[in-house]
Amino acid sequence: MSKLSEIGERDIVASLIRKFDPKGNYSLGDDTGILDYGKDNLLITTDTITKKTHIPKDAEPEDIGWYVAAINLSDIAAMGGHPLGMLFSLGLPTSTSANWLDRLTDGIQECCSKHRVPVLGGDTKENDNITITGIALGTVPKNQTLRRCGARPGDILAVTGQIGRGILWERDKAISQYLKVEPRLKIGQQLAESGAVTSCIDISDGLSTSTHLLAEASNTGFQVEHESIPFVPGLNQKEKLLALHYGGDFELLFTIRPDKAEQILNQEFPDCPITQIGYVTDDISVSLVKDDASIPLENKGYEHFRGR
Amino acid sequence: MSKLSEIGERDIVASLIRKFDPKGNYSLGDDTGILDYGKDNLLITTDTITKKTHIPKDAEPEDIGWYVAAINLSDIAAMGGHPLGMLFSLGLPTSTSANWLDRLTDGIQECCSKHRVPVLGGDTKENDNITITGIALGTVPKNQTLRRCGARPGDILAVTGQIGRGILWERDKAISQYLKVEPRLKIGQQLAESGAVTSCIDISDGLSTSTHLLAEASNTGFQVEHESIPFVPGLNQKEKLLALHYGGDFELLFTIRPDKAEQILNQEFPDCPITQIGYVTDDISVSLVKDDASIPLENKGYEHFRGR
Repeated sequence: MSKLSEIGERDIVASLIRKFDPKGNYSLGDDTGILDYGKDNLLITTDTITKKTHIPKDAEPEDIGWYVAAINLSDIAAMGGHPLGMLFSLGLPTSTSANWLDRLTDGIQECCSKHRVPVLGGDTKENDNITITGIALGTVPKNQTLRRCGARPGDILAVTGQIGRGILWERDKAISQYLKVEPRLKIGQQLAESGAVTSCIDISDGLSTSTHLLAEASNTGFQVEHESIPFVPGLNQKEKLLALHYGGDFELLFTIRPDKAEQILNQEFPDCPITQIGYVTDDISVSLVKDDASIPLENKGYEHFRGR
Repeated sequence: MSKLSEIGERDIVASLIRKFDPKGNYSLGDDTGILDYGKDNLLITTDTITKKTHIPKDAEPEDIGWYVAAINLSDIAAMGGHPLGMLFSLGLPTSTSANWLDRLTDGIQECCSKHRVPVLGGDTKENDNITITGIALGTVPKNQTLRRCGARPGDILAVTGQIGRGILWERDKAISQYLKVEPRLKIGQQLAESGAVTSCIDISDGLSTSTHLLAEASNTGFQVEHESIPFVPGLNQKEKLLALHYGGDFELLFTIRPDKAEQILNQEFPDCPITQIGYVTDDISVSLVKDDASIPLENKGYEHFRGR
């Protein structure tokens, strides 16, 4: 009998999508679920973190609270959405101090307030393994919804901000910096409104995995130029290669129609810069161009249940 | 420093509501959060179950899946809502078999299919303590939304179905029957459309606690007539008293305007019968009339973190 540890998160998720949405009506393969609602799409998503798998040992509760709010809002951002509200399900040991809970929820509130997202409710239950589930609800005009499918050969591949946050955590023990994810809501909305973006995803499990997910959803290939990737400053060559597969960036990875590329790439975005890092190809392989050679960019991002 | 085990779920939730919704804009004290969206209210709710606190030892995975879907839909029902979709966050040990997950999700799908609710997405992560979070999204016309506040002295107190499921589980080890909760969606919608219902809640933590919650939200008192309560058949006198405080009923407890009471109480509901069990009083106490004596109905339902 197969165990989940042998199957791995990606195949588990694929089989659940086949079961619950065999006709692809609800966009279960995207960053959020999509629900047709009048002139808009409603977007809804959930992401859970646990003490054992996601929370660094010395993390401050405020940073944990911020993080769980931010990574859910990041999924709304990846669809070009405007957040409507959030809920939180808090599973905590009975020995947790009231002060710790207060600080955790301060962090949640700080992130939600910054992005003007009301907290609409939640649930609190005892759980020996700290387990915090965020839920984000959002909306986006139907004709502006950013999906993972839609990239076409010749489109430009681009990314917001910088790549390599996870490496900083590992190397510098910069836990607070690592957890203070900035959901790219404003820039996601601007990209959606531009009509120039053909596909989009947030980089939660590493640049390589996210590029593969865009490739699978769009049925295209990608060429990524290593020299163009905007790594966080101070990484050495080995760290830059590791950073391709490291989770925790939460930047938007997206494709731009060639006729709009110059306009988008030259536009000033108040959140952060965007950078062209490659383009969409007409085969179905994902490759990395480095030192004038093209090598396969393997799908080596983090995978739950397998633990790698 | 206070621990959550000393504070208890009710005070924890009260302090979180004060923090996140000090002005009461988002109905955090209701069965679901409420979001103003065009001519409707959007309803969103989440409820988590864990192996340690909610799942009987010998429960079948199909029944667990059904249960987590049903208890979230029950919250939509308590608002008079129509469900739009559900999400599930599954926290499972890596040693879980693929077959167990398949059966769990079969149960989720069975409940969602029966009530025509699409599964819009979710999350899967490893967790040593099985932790399953359901999320339900719904909609209700603004002027039909059922809330906990709104009961007025002279209103009739009524309940759907029968009281005492939890006792059956305890006594007869009728686990499957206990977990096969029927969310009262249709009857909730009919009550909402009637314009006759002034307040409503689902009985998740026991009849006594739910009555106290209606009393607090509406700032009224209640008199409950023990002889009128529709207990599940076969309970002895001691079990009937225990059943007042036992969780797991998931029936709707609601109040009816006196001028509409006869109409509603005589109406045929296809889901299950409804029964008058008391009325709203103009003090703020909750009392139980039994054998011609009136005694306080204490708020003794289950409380998380305290474990009682």
